[in-house]
Amino acid sequence: MVKQLLLRLVPSLAPSPRSLLRHSSISVKARPISSSTVKMAAEYYTFGPYKIHQSEVFYSTHLSYAMVNLRPLLPGHVLICPKREAKRFVDLTADETSDLWLTAQKVGGQLENYHKASSLTFAIQDGPQAGQTVPHVHIHVVPRISGDFEKNDEIYDAMDQKERELKQKLDLDKERKDRSVEEMAREADEYRKLFL
Amino acid sequence: MVKQLLLRLVPSLAPSPRSLLRHSSISVKARPISSSTVKMAAEYYTFGPYKIHQSEVFYSTHLSYAMVNLRPLLPGHVLICPKREAKRFVDLTADETSDLWLTAQKVGGQLENYHKASSLTFAIQDGPQAGQTVPHVHIHVVPRISGDFEKNDEIYDAMDQKERELKQKLDLDKERKDRSVEEMAREADEYRKLFL
Repeated sequence: MVKQLLLRLVPSLAPSPRSLLRHSSISVKARPISSSTVKMAAEYYTFGPYKIHQSEVFYSTHLSYAMVNLRPLLPGHVLICPKREAKRFVDLTADETSDLWLTAQKVGGQLENYHKASSLTFAIQDGPQAGQTVPHVHIHVVPRISGDFEKNDEIYDAMDQKERELKQKLDLDKERKDRSVEEMAREADEYRKLFL
Repeated sequence: MVKQLLLRLVPSLAPSPRSLLRHSSISVKARPISSSTVKMAAEYYTFGPYKIHQSEVFYSTHLSYAMVNLRPLLPGHVLICPKREAKRFVDLTADETSDLWLTAQKVGGQLENYHKASSLTFAIQDGPQAGQTVPHVHIHVVPRISGDFEKNDEIYDAMDQKERELKQKLDLDKERKDRSVEEMAREADEYRKLFL
């Protein structure tokens, strides 16, 4: 049943594997990178061992950032991360913890309205035994509407399955029919306007 | 498959329905209540339309509290709530949001160690379309160990199913083989020691 569900969905918790791979040792389709170190630092956000291009980040504070997904589970499914690389939730300082969740609260509220949703799912898979694959704290924020999943709990099946697939995707170089960088950037642009 | 799983588990997200019902209009097995209003105020915590006896609360701050479950999904599965009645996460003030998650972080860290776990699941079902049944923000904190569920995502099936059943349980007066108030109080006593 779970497998059938997953085939019906086009989900992925992953930020663009293409962009994630951009700076990894197994990067194949690397985007040209500025030679300016200063500029590089401004363009990319840390996500565990990977880098997230700023075009996929639609909101940030001094301690946290919010990014779109390559294949969102549902419209508006985004990830909120601390800027500092931290594997476990308990590793965050009090300031980081507060800022992360105030960011999730703000982003969730805006995206719920934007997508005309009426509820939100918030979840952290904190550690490998909870399903975490990328060792960098990230909150899943998913706007929910009535009937979006046949059964509400199916979103967790899908979310968890995709979290497990994330690392495989990052570590393999397969041909995939993913959203283009441009499409993701357009979504991020739309969301960015919500926070002006 | 989900149903089979649920039959294998003995989970419930619910705080003791018995204690929850204590002050509701359909309470049947009410515990004797002190005639002192001041004392009453100190003995109970608000959880939506229900009241949680302080014997089930093992940690609290000026804004948040942590309580044990009647039928935890896994050892150490607890709920973290704001003291003020608030239905949606966005309804919390910045102070409440920060305090709630700092409490969840602290409690999660202690219970992970206490139960010799290695990961944590954190989740909020924020609104009816996300599976929320009791209209009062609550974080599920669940210590995780390798192999605790056959598949990691099954914990969400169970968690969500139990959230749906919670309200039914609260609104019905059925004979159930639940943990005793004393057993829950003993668990809360154990956890309370972790925060001295």
